[in-house]
Amino acid sequence: MNLPQNVVLKEVGPRDGLQNEKGVIETKDKIQWIDQLSESGLNYIEVSSFVHPKWIPQLADAGEVLKSIKRQKDVTYAALIPNIRGLMRALEVGIDEASVFMSASESHNQSNINKTIDETFPVLKEVVEEAKKANLTVRGYVSTVIGCPFEGPIAPEKVLRVVDALLEMGVTEVSLGDTIGVAVPTQVEQLLTLLFNHYSPSLFAMHFHDTRGTAIANIVKSLEMGITTFDSSVGGLGGCPYAKGATGNVATEDVLYLLSEMGIQTGVQMESIINAGFFIEQKIGRNLVSKQMEIARKERG
Amino acid sequence: MNLPQNVVLKEVGPRDGLQNEKGVIETKDKIQWIDQLSESGLNYIEVSSFVHPKWIPQLADAGEVLKSIKRQKDVTYAALIPNIRGLMRALEVGIDEASVFMSASESHNQSNINKTIDETFPVLKEVVEEAKKANLTVRGYVSTVIGCPFEGPIAPEKVLRVVDALLEMGVTEVSLGDTIGVAVPTQVEQLLTLLFNHYSPSLFAMHFHDTRGTAIANIVKSLEMGITTFDSSVGGLGGCPYAKGATGNVATEDVLYLLSEMGIQTGVQMESIINAGFFIEQKIGRNLVSKQMEIARKERG
Repeated sequence: MNLPQNVVLKEVGPRDGLQNEKGVIETKDKIQWIDQLSESGLNYIEVSSFVHPKWIPQLADAGEVLKSIKRQKDVTYAALIPNIRGLMRALEVGIDEASVFMSASESHNQSNINKTIDETFPVLKEVVEEAKKANLTVRGYVSTVIGCPFEGPIAPEKVLRVVDALLEMGVTEVSLGDTIGVAVPTQVEQLLTLLFNHYSPSLFAMHFHDTRGTAIANIVKSLEMGITTFDSSVGGLGGCPYAKGATGNVATEDVLYLLSEMGIQTGVQMESIINAGFFIEQKIGRNLVSKQMEIARKERG
Repeated sequence: MNLPQNVVLKEVGPRDGLQNEKGVIETKDKIQWIDQLSESGLNYIEVSSFVHPKWIPQLADAGEVLKSIKRQKDVTYAALIPNIRGLMRALEVGIDEASVFMSASESHNQSNINKTIDETFPVLKEVVEEAKKANLTVRGYVSTVIGCPFEGPIAPEKVLRVVDALLEMGVTEVSLGDTIGVAVPTQVEQLLTLLFNHYSPSLFAMHFHDTRGTAIANIVKSLEMGITTFDSSVGGLGGCPYAKGATGNVATEDVLYLLSEMGIQTGVQMESIINAGFFIEQKIGRNLVSKQMEIARKERG
């Protein structure tokens, strides 16, 4: 197999993982957890979101969290930024990278952002321009790149159109999200083949959810095609907390097992990630169900 | 991707899935469940085991089950056969295929069969010869083909040695088992590359456990290398019932999702498999945790 020697794991647990948790997680616990993650060897953590607290009450403390975490010099601290107002709030407390987001699916974009795709572009463009003036890099998330809960399968050409726009604006990386976790490797191959006809694989990260058990297989296919950056979340946090294990992000520790056994370096310590998983599951009040967490639970009794 | 158009799924739930369940499952429930599976479009079911009941009390009713199931003409009904005595018991009630088994790892073979690998060969040879006289085909299981709980990584050459012996005896298919669920696609590729230097891919089935979340990725790699037969178990049944989801077989319905979305035909109906999963989980008294079962549980409320 033609595989990279090194891979970057971008930890999205504190933002994408926690954002749908209904129970209150205290700010001090988030800070302690992110500090643990900062010492695990990860070099990228998406800390929170500056979406209006009305939409994501769980992350209303984004400013406080970013002010209080212990920053490691080799870790990039990012936050989700919906618009200029969110960017201003983030700049007050300091972030290294701003993440903008939209969907490849018109109806998912409408549902999630309350704008058409074409109406979304100028909003993101303004954020990218202002962020660059503030010397931030900008990451662009594209959701529903394989399937949409409303429209079904999404044509790769629709993804390309959004990717074109984001890269034209000046984002430095596009994270391609299989938001509802429907992808299989043939679809990943089809999408990346089209995108790589136009752009270098180094411009992309893959963001898989493991809803149907295909995330690890999709990561392997992405690796074979030249992707070297993946989003993941400790314990597979993410998605609806009332559907155990059903819609989470792919778990950081399960990706770590795969990569490590395939001889690919990440610099991330498995034990630190597992410890961070045990820490946060106590705070959210339910067991995390990744494979490595289950194994650790057995081993530790 | 270079993929086959058709794949055969061999259902091992009634044997490999149930054999470690501690609670008593009534014979009539096993029969009803296997009858459901017979009508799902599966064309191969491993029904039970004729290992001495002292070792696997759960399957002590193998004869009764095989006598009472409704046999469909397009389904092959197989059973695990440890020795001549087991074969005689099986022939009394009728099976289509006998499955013999051993390990690629000396210490696992010793632990599981209480014989060295070299001592095991003549026992299996006798079974294969007698089975063929009775017009049965014989399948050979090789356990721990990637990793062993006692020895760690297993060299592909050790697997080849056992495969050589089994094929020489006259087995018609070798099922290669990642018994403890440690494999990653690079290891699968390494093993199959060696075996396919000597034998046709059509002689092999892959038998993955999903302990570390890599089973689906390993199946994709196996498909790409020419494998067209996979063992799986409804609901991911198998392994230790006290470690939820930790050591089961790869779930039939999760493999089915993967194959179906990649355009590969199996003839198996997803809904029938899910129904069979809901049936058996009531009998064993705990929820099955495959991805498709979780989704179905949500959808059905």
